[in-house]
Amino acid sequence: MAAEIVNSGSELDDGAIDPAFALHRGGKMAVRATVPVRDADDLSLAYTPGVAKVCSAIAEQPELVHDYTWKSQVVAVVTDGTAVLGLGDIGPQASLPVMEGKAILFKQFGGVDAVPIALDCRDVDEIVETVVRMAPSFGGINLEDISAPRCFEIERRLQERLDIPVFHDDQHGTAVVTLAALRNAARLRGVALGELRAVISGAGAAGVAIARILVEAGIGDVAVCDRKGVVSPDRTDLTDVKRDLAGFTNRAGLTGSLESALAGADVFIGVSGGTVPEEAVARMARDAFVFAMANPDPEIHPDVAHKYASVVATGRSDYPNQINNVLAFPGIFAGALQVRASRITEGMKLAAAEALAAVVADELSAACVIPSPFDERVAPAVTAAVAAAARAEGVARR
Amino acid sequence: MAAEIVNSGSELDDGAIDPAFALHRGGKMAVRATVPVRDADDLSLAYTPGVAKVCSAIAEQPELVHDYTWKSQVVAVVTDGTAVLGLGDIGPQASLPVMEGKAILFKQFGGVDAVPIALDCRDVDEIVETVVRMAPSFGGINLEDISAPRCFEIERRLQERLDIPVFHDDQHGTAVVTLAALRNAARLRGVALGELRAVISGAGAAGVAIARILVEAGIGDVAVCDRKGVVSPDRTDLTDVKRDLAGFTNRAGLTGSLESALAGADVFIGVSGGTVPEEAVARMARDAFVFAMANPDPEIHPDVAHKYASVVATGRSDYPNQINNVLAFPGIFAGALQVRASRITEGMKLAAAEALAAVVADELSAACVIPSPFDERVAPAVTAAVAAAARAEGVARR
Repeated sequence: MAAEIVNSGSELDDGAIDPAFALHRGGKMAVRATVPVRDADDLSLAYTPGVAKVCSAIAEQPELVHDYTWKSQVVAVVTDGTAVLGLGDIGPQASLPVMEGKAILFKQFGGVDAVPIALDCRDVDEIVETVVRMAPSFGGINLEDISAPRCFEIERRLQERLDIPVFHDDQHGTAVVTLAALRNAARLRGVALGELRAVISGAGAAGVAIARILVEAGIGDVAVCDRKGVVSPDRTDLTDVKRDLAGFTNRAGLTGSLESALAGADVFIGVSGGTVPEEAVARMARDAFVFAMANPDPEIHPDVAHKYASVVATGRSDYPNQINNVLAFPGIFAGALQVRASRITEGMKLAAAEALAAVVADELSAACVIPSPFDERVAPAVTAAVAAAARAEGVARR
Repeated sequence: MAAEIVNSGSELDDGAIDPAFALHRGGKMAVRATVPVRDADDLSLAYTPGVAKVCSAIAEQPELVHDYTWKSQVVAVVTDGTAVLGLGDIGPQASLPVMEGKAILFKQFGGVDAVPIALDCRDVDEIVETVVRMAPSFGGINLEDISAPRCFEIERRLQERLDIPVFHDDQHGTAVVTLAALRNAARLRGVALGELRAVISGAGAAGVAIARILVEAGIGDVAVCDRKGVVSPDRTDLTDVKRDLAGFTNRAGLTGSLESALAGADVFIGVSGGTVPEEAVARMARDAFVFAMANPDPEIHPDVAHKYASVVATGRSDYPNQINNVLAFPGIFAGALQVRASRITEGMKLAAAEALAAVVADELSAACVIPSPFDERVAPAVTAAVAAAARAEGVARR
C-alpha cells in the first residue's frame, strides 16, 4: 500500500500522507438499509414474497412509486467529466471524487440521497437518451461539470422529456447564491437591484445563468463578457447561447473589453478565472460590489477589491462572504422532492435566492451578505421556500 | 395518508395496514457519508479544493479510481422490469421495490453497496449501450429480472464490452445455490454427480444456467424441459439458446414430455411454475432428489415429494432446504470486488457452489443440504472462495 501511495503522488515531501488522499481512501459514501433484514420474517416483507404486493400496487397505480420506494428522495448526480472543477475535461472516472463529494453534500445539508452517475459518452443525444432511460429510478437529475455550451442543450432537452426536476447546478446553484448575496449587498447599501449595473466576467454555464437570474430579478443592466469582450449583438463570433444572451442583456449597448465595461459599473461578478487589473477595479462606481468567485485565485484579490468596493465576496472559504453552491442545491432539491415537483422553475430559483438572503437579513454587514455553508438555518429555509414556490407555480404534485 | 393507503389497496380487510406496505413506506434504503462533513476543514478535503488533487491523480493513473472512490464497492442492480418475480412484465418503476430489496441484501449479507437502476427501455441494443455508458461509476453490474432469451444476449454483450463483472443473478445465483444443494444431497446419499440423471423443468434464465453449471460440474446427464417437453435436437421450434442447450444436454436423447423424462430420473429441478403430477414423481428413481423451487407454489408439494424423494428442497422459507439466491450473490460480488476481478468466470461460480456446500458439510442431513440464508458463515466462505478462484483463473487485478 505504501508503494501504491508513492506511485499515486499522494505523499507529501516530508513523507506524510496527504490528508485529502487519506480521507478519500475507499470512497466517501455507502448505502444502508433503512429497514431490518435480520430474520426470515423481515426478509419475507422486504423481499419475496411481501415485495410482490408492493410491486403489483405500483404497476396498477404508478404514482405509488413515490410512496413505497426511495425514488422520490434520491437524485442522480450526472456528469460526463468534461468540465470538472477547474481541471477541465478529465473524463468520467476521474470526476467521481467530485460527484461523490456532491452526493454527500446533498445528504449532509439537505437530507437528500444522491448517487454519482459518471457517463462514458460525450455526444449530446447519447447523454440525453441515457439519462432518460435511467430516470425511472430517480426523483431528480442534478447535472454537474458538463462543459458549455453542451450543458444548456442537455438540460433543456432532458427537462422536456422528463417529469422530474433536471437542474444543472453549475448554472443555477451558482446563480441562486449570487443573487442572494447581491440582494443583501443592495439592501445593505440601500439601493434597489434596478439601480445597479453589473458586469459578469465569463459566459459559460455560470455566467449565462447568473445573467438570466439577475435580469429576472430586475437588475438595472447586466453585461456579460467572454474572452473577446462584451457579448453584444454586433459580434459575429457568437454561439447560439451567446447570441441569445446578447438579446436580453447589455441594454446599454456596451462593446469592447471587460475593463472598459467595468468603468462606472456597480457590480463585478467573476466566474471566469483570469485576472482583472486594479486600474479597472478603481474605475468602477463608488461603493461597488466585487464578487470574484474564481477558485483558488479570485479574479480580483480581496485585498485589492476592498480598496474600492463596499462588499467583497469570493468562492473561498477563508474569506468572508463565500459564494458556495452548497447553500442552494441541497435545499432546492429537498423542496422540489418534498412536493414532487415536475421541474424547478425560475420562480422556485428566485424564491430560493430570497429565502437564502433572508436567513442573514437581521445580521447584515459588509462581511455578512450571505450565510455560512454551515449555518443550519439555510437548508430548511430554502426547502420551505422552494416547496411553496412549486405549489404556487403549479408544478407540485402533492 | 389514510385515504392514500386505502386507494393503494394496501389495507387489509380488518382495516390494519398490510405490514409489507408499512415497511416499504419511504423506501428501504438510503445513502450515507462515510467521511465527516462537519466544518470548513472537512469540506475542503472532501470537496473543493482538496478533491481536485484526487481527481488529478485518477486522471493520470486511472486505476487509482479503485482506491479513492466507492466505485470498487458499489454494484448497479439493473433491470428493465420485464420479468419481475412471478409478476412478469410490470415495467421499470413497479420493479423498484425488488431492486431496492436486492440492494439491501447485497449490503446486509455481503457488505457490498448497491444501487437500483431500473431502465425505461427494452431494446437489447439500447440496454447494452445504456449500461456501458454508466459503467464508469460502478464496480460491477448485477442484471435482474430481465426476460429470457434477451437476458442471455444482454449479459454476454455487456461482459464483452466491460472490464467489470456482469452477472445475471436469475441465472447464475440460482445455478450456484442449486449445485451446492445437489452436491450435498449426493454426498449424503454417497453417490457422485456423475452417477445422477437430472431433469430440469423450465428453460428460461434459471433453467439454462442450472443445466450449464451441472454439466460443468460433471452431472451424469441432464435434460431440460420447456412447455413443449424435452429440449432435444429433433425439435424445430427451438430458439438459438435452446438449440445450444440441446447440444450440450440430454445425452440420453430423450424426447417427449417432462413426465416421461422423469421416469427413472434421480433429480427433479423445478424453475418453471406449473405442477408435476404425483404419478410422475412416483416413477422417479428410488431416493431421488426433488428441488421444486417455484414460488409461492412448488411444482411438487413437499408433502408429496417426501413420499418418494430422499432430499426435498424448495424456494420457500417455511420448509427446510431453501434454495435462495441470497446465499450466493452477495459473496460472489464481494469476492469479485475484493480482488477487482474483470469478470465472474465459470470457475468462480463452481468455487462459490463448493464453498456454499462446504459450510454445512459437517452437519448434513436430509433437512440440511444447504445453509440457512441467515447462516453467518456463508458470505465469508463464498467471498474467500470466489476471490481465490478469480486469482487462480487470472481475472483478478490485485
